[in-house]
Amino acid sequence: MLKPEDTRIERDSMGEMQVPGSAYYGASTQRAVLNFPISDLRFPREFIRALGQIKQAAAEVNVSLANIDSQLATPIKQAAQEVIDGKLDDHFVLDIFQTGSGTSTNMNANEVIANRASELLGGSRGSRTVHPNDHVNFGQSSNDVIPSAIHLAAAVSIEENLLPALDELRKALSEKAQEFYPVIKTGRTHLQDATPIRLGQEFEGYVGQIERGLQRIRTAQNELSELALGGTAVGTGINTHPEFSARVCQELTKLSGISVRETSNHFQAQSTLDNIVAASGALNALAVSLMKIANDIRWLGSGPRAGFGELELPAVQPGSSIMPGKVNPVIAESVCMVCAQVMGNHTTITVAGQSGNFEINVMMPVAAYNLLQSIKILAEAARNFSRQCIVGLKATPKGPEMVEQGLSMCTSLAPVIGYDAAAAISKEAHKTGRTVREVARERTPLSEEDLTRILDPVNMTRPGLDGGPAGG
Amino acid sequence: MLKPEDTRIERDSMGEMQVPGSAYYGASTQRAVLNFPISDLRFPREFIRALGQIKQAAAEVNVSLANIDSQLATPIKQAAQEVIDGKLDDHFVLDIFQTGSGTSTNMNANEVIANRASELLGGSRGSRTVHPNDHVNFGQSSNDVIPSAIHLAAAVSIEENLLPALDELRKALSEKAQEFYPVIKTGRTHLQDATPIRLGQEFEGYVGQIERGLQRIRTAQNELSELALGGTAVGTGINTHPEFSARVCQELTKLSGISVRETSNHFQAQSTLDNIVAASGALNALAVSLMKIANDIRWLGSGPRAGFGELELPAVQPGSSIMPGKVNPVIAESVCMVCAQVMGNHTTITVAGQSGNFEINVMMPVAAYNLLQSIKILAEAARNFSRQCIVGLKATPKGPEMVEQGLSMCTSLAPVIGYDAAAAISKEAHKTGRTVREVARERTPLSEEDLTRILDPVNMTRPGLDGGPAGG
Amino acid sequence: MLKPEDTRIERDSMGEMQVPGSAYYGASTQRAVLNFPISDLRFPREFIRALGQIKQAAAEVNVSLANIDSQLATPIKQAAQEVIDGKLDDHFVLDIFQTGSGTSTNMNANEVIANRASELLGGSRGSRTVHPNDHVNFGQSSNDVIPSAIHLAAAVSIEENLLPALDELRKALSEKAQEFYPVIKTGRTHLQDATPIRLGQEFEGYVGQIERGLQRIRTAQNELSELALGGTAVGTGINTHPEFSARVCQELTKLSGISVRETSNHFQAQSTLDNIVAASGALNALAVSLMKIANDIRWLGSGPRAGFGELELPAVQPGSSIMPGKVNPVIAESVCMVCAQVMGNHTTITVAGQSGNFEINVMMPVAAYNLLQSIKILAEAARNFSRQCIVGLKATPKGPEMVEQGLSMCTSLAPVIGYDAAAAISKEAHKTGRTVREVARERTPLSEEDLTRILDPVNMTRPGLDGGPAGG
Amino acid sequence: MLKPEDTRIERDSMGEMQVPGSAYYGASTQRAVLNFPISDLRFPREFIRALGQIKQAAAEVNVSLANIDSQLATPIKQAAQEVIDGKLDDHFVLDIFQTGSGTSTNMNANEVIANRASELLGGSRGSRTVHPNDHVNFGQSSNDVIPSAIHLAAAVSIEENLLPALDELRKALSEKAQEFYPVIKTGRTHLQDATPIRLGQEFEGYVGQIERGLQRIRTAQNELSELALGGTAVGTGINTHPEFSARVCQELTKLSGISVRETSNHFQAQSTLDNIVAASGALNALAVSLMKIANDIRWLGSGPRAGFGELELPAVQPGSSIMPGKVNPVIAESVCMVCAQVMGNHTTITVAGQSGNFEINVMMPVAAYNLLQSIKILAEAARNFSRQCIVGLKATPKGPEMVEQGLSMCTSLAPVIGYDAAAAISKEAHKTGRTVREVARERTPLSEEDLTRILDPVNMTRPGLDGGPAGG
Repeated sequence: MLKPEDTRIERDSMGEMQVPGSAYYGASTQRAVLNFPISDLRFPREFIRALGQIKQAAAEVNVSLANIDSQLATPIKQAAQEVIDGKLDDHFVLDIFQTGSGTSTNMNANEVIANRASELLGGSRGSRTVHPNDHVNFGQSSNDVIPSAIHLAAAVSIEENLLPALDELRKALSEKAQEFYPVIKTGRTHLQDATPIRLGQEFEGYVGQIERGLQRIRTAQNELSELALGGTAVGTGINTHPEFSARVCQELTKLSGISVRETSNHFQAQSTLDNIVAASGALNALAVSLMKIANDIRWLGSGPRAGFGELELPAVQPGSSIMPGKVNPVIAESVCMVCAQVMGNHTTITVAGQSGNFEINVMMPVAAYNLLQSIKILAEAARNFSRQCIVGLKATPKGPEMVEQGLSMCTSLAPVIGYDAAAAISKEAHKTGRTVREVARERTPLSEEDLTRILDPVNMTRPGLDGGPAGG
Repeated sequence: MLKPEDTRIERDSMGEMQVPGSAYYGASTQRAVLNFPISDLRFPREFIRALGQIKQAAAEVNVSLANIDSQLATPIKQAAQEVIDGKLDDHFVLDIFQTGSGTSTNMNANEVIANRASELLGGSRGSRTVHPNDHVNFGQSSNDVIPSAIHLAAAVSIEENLLPALDELRKALSEKAQEFYPVIKTGRTHLQDATPIRLGQEFEGYVGQIERGLQRIRTAQNELSELALGGTAVGTGINTHPEFSARVCQELTKLSGISVRETSNHFQAQSTLDNIVAASGALNALAVSLMKIANDIRWLGSGPRAGFGELELPAVQPGSSIMPGKVNPVIAESVCMVCAQVMGNHTTITVAGQSGNFEINVMMPVAAYNLLQSIKILAEAARNFSRQCIVGLKATPKGPEMVEQGLSMCTSLAPVIGYDAAAAISKEAHKTGRTVREVARERTPLSEEDLTRILDPVNMTRPGLDGGPAGG
Repeated sequence: MLKPEDTRIERDSMGEMQVPGSAYYGASTQRAVLNFPISDLRFPREFIRALGQIKQAAAEVNVSLANIDSQLATPIKQAAQEVIDGKLDDHFVLDIFQTGSGTSTNMNANEVIANRASELLGGSRGSRTVHPNDHVNFGQSSNDVIPSAIHLAAAVSIEENLLPALDELRKALSEKAQEFYPVIKTGRTHLQDATPIRLGQEFEGYVGQIERGLQRIRTAQNELSELALGGTAVGTGINTHPEFSARVCQELTKLSGISVRETSNHFQAQSTLDNIVAASGALNALAVSLMKIANDIRWLGSGPRAGFGELELPAVQPGSSIMPGKVNPVIAESVCMVCAQVMGNHTTITVAGQSGNFEINVMMPVAAYNLLQSIKILAEAARNFSRQCIVGLKATPKGPEMVEQGLSMCTSLAPVIGYDAAAAISKEAHKTGRTVREVARERTPLSEEDLTRILDPVNMTRPGLDGGPAGG
Repeated sequence: MLKPEDTRIERDSMGEMQVPGSAYYGASTQRAVLNFPISDLRFPREFIRALGQIKQAAAEVNVSLANIDSQLATPIKQAAQEVIDGKLDDHFVLDIFQTGSGTSTNMNANEVIANRASELLGGSRGSRTVHPNDHVNFGQSSNDVIPSAIHLAAAVSIEENLLPALDELRKALSEKAQEFYPVIKTGRTHLQDATPIRLGQEFEGYVGQIERGLQRIRTAQNELSELALGGTAVGTGINTHPEFSARVCQELTKLSGISVRETSNHFQAQSTLDNIVAASGALNALAVSLMKIANDIRWLGSGPRAGFGELELPAVQPGSSIMPGKVNPVIAESVCMVCAQVMGNHTTITVAGQSGNFEINVMMPVAAYNLLQSIKILAEAARNFSRQCIVGLKATPKGPEMVEQGLSMCTSLAPVIGYDAAAAISKEAHKTGRTVREVARERTPLSEEDLTRILDPVNMTRPGLDGGPAGG
């Protein structure tokens, strides 16, 4: 495709390669371009940023440890800043389905930064004035850089995207829990009419789900904050300074805004994806929670006429290409699909995690992609769900209207007249189409006053034994 | 972002919307743009093409059934052709995480085609000269169009991408099976040395895996060839001609190059993703097969010195940013990661599949994305694996060199001297570091000639009882 | 636990072991008892029976090939018959979580049969008159026996349990489809009211799901009918007669009642679980189908007052320990839980399938357990669902009562008056609480006769354009 | 099966049922026996014990709150103690695949305890002297009892089984890490020879995995320690005393030995399985960790001649029915199969978790079964792995023997002579079959003393730059 004048020659330890003239990357990256023409899946922005931050921090620390000259470190740091800022994203060209260590992408970063730094020093691209391995990668290996970049990118994305989005959702649900507190409706277990519940209480349940989700995600984030850097090739730390990792982590804490630390176990850190699998487990649990909430809201909004119809959802778009005027719970549906995706990503990450052998797990890029995608789409779906659905929810009169019809109203009779007698009332009401109150009037010696107190739906929405325990 | 002069007003049944002036899509699409700012996942080319083919075929048939004027149908078909050819891809802008029926994307197609057709008729975009619902979507509903487009796109992608790639892999493995037929090596069960096997026989096993995979994929493709078209809103066929579906399927067979047919059960076809789940099951099984093959090849190539070292894999790129000269089995690793992704996609599709209610399953877009991705990355990975790894494999002398050392050589002694006596020879050989032959010379009355025949590794690689059955 | 007098000494190639005096098994089994104290999961009856059938068929064929004396073969066959008949089940004592090849269970069978056969010949248990390896296992290896037993057991269980159960379910659903054909109700897409559909058509959809499921299961059964027998240790067939496999398959066809055949590729057959993974994929798809059906029925039966209430399910037990008189769709729920279990079993089988290396996959027992469990519980759940739920379903008047209220009634107006005008009618009806018919009377020039024809729910449940296409 | 004289009549709110005369359970349980003839899966001992503890604690508290007479409570507590002690296990007869709330099993407990308590008071079984609902179940609902029993059983099983087993494994691995610290061997990344590592360092990595696993499991246990009790039917607490839950939790803390507490959110607690899904995520991560460790040990033990052969595993049983003398890593294999099972159980639990609607999730029993099984088999597998494999591991001389042959020895040359020059040495060594040291002597100006220092494998197993950074 490229004409000769459009390319230049780059070299790596395997020999020469033609690369596009405008590319900052070099021979190793170009080999990987040719080796992996599989998909259109790429490392996301968050990951490239984290990689840039690691390279910048490493250069900083390598100078301080007298491992590389500051003359070289300065342009390296500047080039790394451009990577951090996304200015060189077009030069990160590799497929997720590449070498399992992510070495190709680490070399992509090393080559882009080396060439850009060489240029800043007045050299040409390909001049190796700044060397991708000897300088940019000094004291590092793909085997510690890539898992560290995954951890860092994920922890930061949790901080910047997921936690705020979940917090926004928590607040939106919490406000609705308050707003809907006065709305008493028929509870449902097994999809069957049960004792009354406040619509606000149902939303309290959702709040509790998100609160626990937040806690789990924070725990996961803490696990992701331990970095493999310093282990180099196989975890032993060959070719790096003993203080390198701790110092780089200090720098990264400054650069990233979240507190990261050197792992307490370099062999665990770079031979496994365990912390990633655990984090994905927390995301999976969150997906399960969101699926429940989104489904409940879809079902409560079902209708408008032949459904439950207890909630009215904001109408955001026409629902059908053939049925005019139809409005569907599309925001909730998009949330559900995100959840299904996250559950599948979790399987991918689990399969990846159990594939490791000896000093490395060669499923790093696919684990990175799926983890970062799960974080991102959960965040965006949660935020969108809050804004375009939850805050606009309205309670209809239908829920309250059905309460008195509920056969499980008889539940509060049971402590007074016993389970079996209460069941007989419920059956009779069902058979005759009457209410529990109506039948109870006939079939029990309870006064109207008693019935009013015992069958008060408001009472039923809080703990207590309003008739006193049976025989108690 | 867009300045007023850059936009125009479009209308749909909900009212007016500003859309980008250059966009062919209209108000409904624009609503969906705003409603679903979730991810960067988009319907792939294959899907957009299939959607274009459906719209073109529908227009053709609607004219023949006198449902729409040929004056309108002609520009619709031309606009649809542009969609088919990918010329309007930039106008398909919607997120996968959208309405669960894919209505937004069906409307996206309807609006793009309507506006482009209006333009071809001399009207302006937004003029509704050609109407997205009344004309382009005539006789259709998202609820039959979208599942049909998924089926069609997947069946075609299987035909064009996956089957040829698997066939190429099958051939490459088969050629290696022949080339490696003379190479006799130690078999391994439980990772432990077992009786001899030909390297070519191991590759025969891989060939058998791919052959069965091809068969399963063809069965899946056949299931995907039944289309929901004609069911419209809920499967009943309201607002469409009874012959519409059969005729459109005839057109689609011509357009797509694969034989498609009207479903025999419109209610099954559009209320479930069952055929998609089943197809994904076949892809999952293929992923399992490829994982085995890629792993075997990685392990047989392990070393170069402290590993099995029976195969030499093509060296395609430097293996490490820190360990100079290292070469890794990166092509095989990329295959393994693809397999992990496909297994996860299968979970997503399964979760999607079990989510259906009543007349539709509202996880269509996410199922489409994952199914088409699985097909595509399996195809590309299989092709790349063939070309950049399998065809370049070489057998090293190490496998054959170890055969005589194998303790399971004693297996062919068992039918002659009994299992227990043969086991004692194996144990003695293990303890003393000798070969089975050496110990057998001492411990059995068998002649050298007998031993030569019984312990011949060539004989061990085929059925037969060279010593005769024990006591037989 | 056992007193000295309660045990006897048995030997295997590793030396002596004390085994319970009453046990037919020997030293190797006893070692495995001690080695694997993990769980209470055991190989099911179907598997033990298949193992007995293989041993019996092998003995028969080994005599015919002059590999073992008929004097030995006769008691072996008799002992194997006792295994087949379940008389010796108490002697199959091993955990599923054992050696990954299932060798321990193969040896369990060999030892039980050898000891029982020795006894039949007048020898004592432990006498090795009949030898577990040299005689019972002649021409076999765990590596071909165990995958063959899995295939055989699964294919037979499909034949005897799953296919009849699915067929019964198919018939029950089909009868309901007919019975419910006259019942016209509101269709639902996105859980929102859509155009009318017959309740019988919904059940037709379920019938179509089961029909396709049956077809997929039959395809899977056919794949499972190819047996690895004859490959012995590593697939090469060492120590067995070239005709052994084909002849044993003939015997097994007679014994089992289903047609089985020698694999065309012994290396694929015993180094992979691919056919099992594919079969599990079909079971997973079936679980997805059943989940949809069971869920639909649960939801259609929701209420009795504050739900959809279109179906009345048989009341099979009290629904609540606290809410008297409550009745829940418990049979459908048990089906859903079975489906969830099968989906999880499928993940286990997939993980197992992708774990193979070289000449064997050492996840055979766990794959066997999960596959056979999935077949069994799907069969029982389908049968129970038919008998205790489907056949007793009744349509309530609620579905038909709501049809005229449906806003999607306006759909059939669209081909006549256009989508946008029809949408406006729907919106107005929604806002004002009126019916589409009422608003259309006001807002369109259509005659009452036209409206009657166009808005006829019966017409809406079949293909056709009753108003003629818009502008057509 | 049962003759008339063997049965008695019991009643529940649906009417009469014949139950086996010897059964303590009553009519509701018997209905469920007939309703759910699906599988042989039963609630495990841990669950029945937890259920007994809840019933006992509830009786205690109900007396203290004057809800039931102590005359009734005393025999209830005694009967519950018999349930706790396993004396009545034969009377818990119900299938896991039952009503999704587990109501049948809650009623099974209520009926067994009521009948046994009636008997203790001198009444007959079926007399309802003690009433299953009005007395045993007082202040409870299946909807709070069952999730509480799952949580309690799982938290206790973690305490009693899993944590000690993991701790034992951690210690065993840690001791091996120390024992193997002097063993220097070739590291492996991508299965290819990498820089040297201590065998003890590899085991340190495993220790780090288990340590983190322990931490995750403790976090999960803490989440499981919040109980739904007190929410009764739908979370509102209808029919129970406001202090009931807190008091019962105090009792349960005493009875169970682990600290449990009333949930802070009754709606979350009983409408979701979220905490269970999260706990299963931690178990899934543990399975991933154990799979890595077990696989590494299998591979390091591969051979004995044609494999890695760096570890010798305890020989626990004959490995093959056909290959005499073969010994396989069967304990590790059983661990791997357990891990595959746990991953599948996690999918089941995830599917179950995402299925909830409104006030309950009707997949409780299947979630309970899978969660408790995962805890149990992980515990037993970890314990067995420690005792029958890890403690008996021996390092062979093969690892150390290969170190000097390693091509990645050149890694420590790179900081001195640069990556490219070091790569050239590695390639030359590979081509010529020499060592890196031999080639470096020729190709670099480094003194023998320098080479000795730089190429010292001991140095390579710790951080540091023994040659000083290149150009540094």
